[in-house]
Amino acid sequence: MTTPSLLILPGDGIGPEVMAEVRKVIDWFGAKRDLTFDVSEDLVGGCAYDKHGTPLHDDTMAKAQEVDAVLLGAVGGPQYDSLDFSVKPERGLLRLRKEMDLFANLRPAQCFDALADFSSLKKDVVAGLDIMIVRELTSGIYFGEPRGIIEEGNERVGINTQRYTESEIDRVARNAFELAMKRNKKLCSMEKANVMESGVLWREVVTEVGKDYPEVELSHMYADAGAMQLCRWPKQFDVIVTDNLFGDLLSDAAAMLTGSLGMLPSASLGAPMANGRPKAMYEPVHGSAPDIAGQGKANPIACVLSFAMALRYSFDQGAEATRLEKAIETVLADGYRTADLLGEEGKDPVSTSQMGDAIIAAL
Amino acid sequence: MTTPSLLILPGDGIGPEVMAEVRKVIDWFGAKRDLTFDVSEDLVGGCAYDKHGTPLHDDTMAKAQEVDAVLLGAVGGPQYDSLDFSVKPERGLLRLRKEMDLFANLRPAQCFDALADFSSLKKDVVAGLDIMIVRELTSGIYFGEPRGIIEEGNERVGINTQRYTESEIDRVARNAFELAMKRNKKLCSMEKANVMESGVLWREVVTEVGKDYPEVELSHMYADAGAMQLCRWPKQFDVIVTDNLFGDLLSDAAAMLTGSLGMLPSASLGAPMANGRPKAMYEPVHGSAPDIAGQGKANPIACVLSFAMALRYSFDQGAEATRLEKAIETVLADGYRTADLLGEEGKDPVSTSQMGDAIIAAL
Ligand SMILES: CC(C)[C@H](C(=O)O)[C@@H](O)C(=O)O
Ligand SMILES: CC(C)[C@H](C(=O)O)[C@@H](O)C(=O)O
Repeated sequence: MTTPSLLILPGDGIGPEVMAEVRKVIDWFGAKRDLTFDVSEDLVGGCAYDKHGTPLHDDTMAKAQEVDAVLLGAVGGPQYDSLDFSVKPERGLLRLRKEMDLFANLRPAQCFDALADFSSLKKDVVAGLDIMIVRELTSGIYFGEPRGIIEEGNERVGINTQRYTESEIDRVARNAFELAMKRNKKLCSMEKANVMESGVLWREVVTEVGKDYPEVELSHMYADAGAMQLCRWPKQFDVIVTDNLFGDLLSDAAAMLTGSLGMLPSASLGAPMANGRPKAMYEPVHGSAPDIAGQGKANPIACVLSFAMALRYSFDQGAEATRLEKAIETVLADGYRTADLLGEEGKDPVSTSQMGDAIIAAL
Repeated sequence: MTTPSLLILPGDGIGPEVMAEVRKVIDWFGAKRDLTFDVSEDLVGGCAYDKHGTPLHDDTMAKAQEVDAVLLGAVGGPQYDSLDFSVKPERGLLRLRKEMDLFANLRPAQCFDALADFSSLKKDVVAGLDIMIVRELTSGIYFGEPRGIIEEGNERVGINTQRYTESEIDRVARNAFELAMKRNKKLCSMEKANVMESGVLWREVVTEVGKDYPEVELSHMYADAGAMQLCRWPKQFDVIVTDNLFGDLLSDAAAMLTGSLGMLPSASLGAPMANGRPKAMYEPVHGSAPDIAGQGKANPIACVLSFAMALRYSFDQGAEATRLEKAIETVLADGYRTADLLGEEGKDPVSTSQMGDAIIAAL
């Protein structure tokens, strides 16, 4: 069997810092667990624009298509805010998602025991929380045509199109049902079928797919009610499936609610490749955090956990993924905290690399 | 001066129950404060469909256009879920918003002191919270064309269009800046300018309008970050302005976070009529709550506070509005609680009409 390949795209802001810690972890697995990867690294986002005038060079795109998995840090920063829409850092990320056809974005919203106090929610509302949001990632209003800013009469009009085909809904729904089967067999689908026809179709197709999963308890909720219920009592959910735009807001809200934002990984999965592995990209849920970039303050755990997801979903190394996740639990239980996990406590935070080293030690 | 006119549309579910309490309040103002209204009542939503086969009869629409203000309860219920999209209860509400051109939906998210414990958020995060969300209400993906479910190849495609003109953004932005001027002079505008061209135009126009309000501190946030920040530390906001769909989710999340969902009113305002009053509709933020309808359990306060907003925004009776709001504070401070405000406390709740009577007594 050939060595599995990994393309690392650290990106902007705190991306490179947190990714440096992931590399330590990757090296550790090579040295100690005989799990070696063929690792290459490249640019995405603002740094790619700075070098190539585009947030994702065609060569990078081609590499991403060839490797077994992509690990991405984060993209964006204020210095790119005034760039034209077509070359903004985000376009690099969106191109990767679209061209790799990574239609299922898995975003666990988990509350780490050691951090339950850190949520803005009451402890009993979040302690032990463990839900999975499956967000459609390659369609909807992110990619629908027509789009743009046009002239009409004597003013400009901004236009975007939400567009979902039955097969696009079907495949992401199946993915969510499969996940629900491995978890607590509850799936809640969210849309605005009371207002949007694309939501009507979404609800119909999800209901239809549900017939193939009679064991899964399927429910439907309007996305606004879903936002409310996530804030009120998130533990009512197991798996949530929703579209690209609703998924963007709802998964971010859910992530923040756990109090563990700097801790949350994500996996974006596509169809199986020739070798049976799914096309895949892994990235932390947090952004590029330009305000703290380069200061060694960032929390590398979300990015390390994204690598754990890669071990599980791309490389069939569930046991090794669990080993890594347990190491992180140990480190947290031992009291290691980066600045974002400290709040008012007044303790001294550990740096990004100290946190990485602690994880290696715990491994 | 002619007697101001009010059209009451109780709607479905708990709508009629909570509206009955508002009528007591209206009668009180007539008897005790010499503030009389010419009140008429009609159907909207599922009950209108049951009687007329349409969720809003043309005659009702015409009446709504003529009166000084509309008071609406809530629409919808499970018995209407299988209705065709075009006659769903929600279409009645959406038609009122659109044809009355009620472009600015004001949704205060306030935490009532007596209820701070009731939020799923920690007390210090919500106590004293008082923000105002201004949601665009007559455009965007709710109304954009093309829309529908079409056949393409051998499958169906669900389509909706987000569409914003400069003037649509301009007018709602102005409204939000005006409100900010009367409050703490901070406005945060939310969109997804990193992903949607309609968001790019939104940000540009809001920035432009901001030049007319140099005293207001304007900021911009991506809507997903906005959802996060609302969950993390909502007190960072004063006024928020956002589009129809983001406003739907964000205002519901914010309302739930206050712990005072059954308490929150809203005002939907349009352009001034010939008599100088704005076109206006007032409604509680909560929905029709079919699960508790007809049981005398509903909390009428949101609907009563919606009438208070009508006094303030339509009838220039700010002092009387404050009188009514103070009466509600008194009632809460005295310990009156409908079932939704009790949680685990095990006290006996008061009924919908007992709450209404208590408000009258406090007045
Ligand atoms: C950076 C941005 C384009 C992206 C999105 O909107 O999808 C981000 O918010 C995310 O959720 O991954
Ligand atoms: C009932 C529904 C059509 C409505 C909306 O989506 O606008 C509601 O959720 C609201 O926020 O007023």
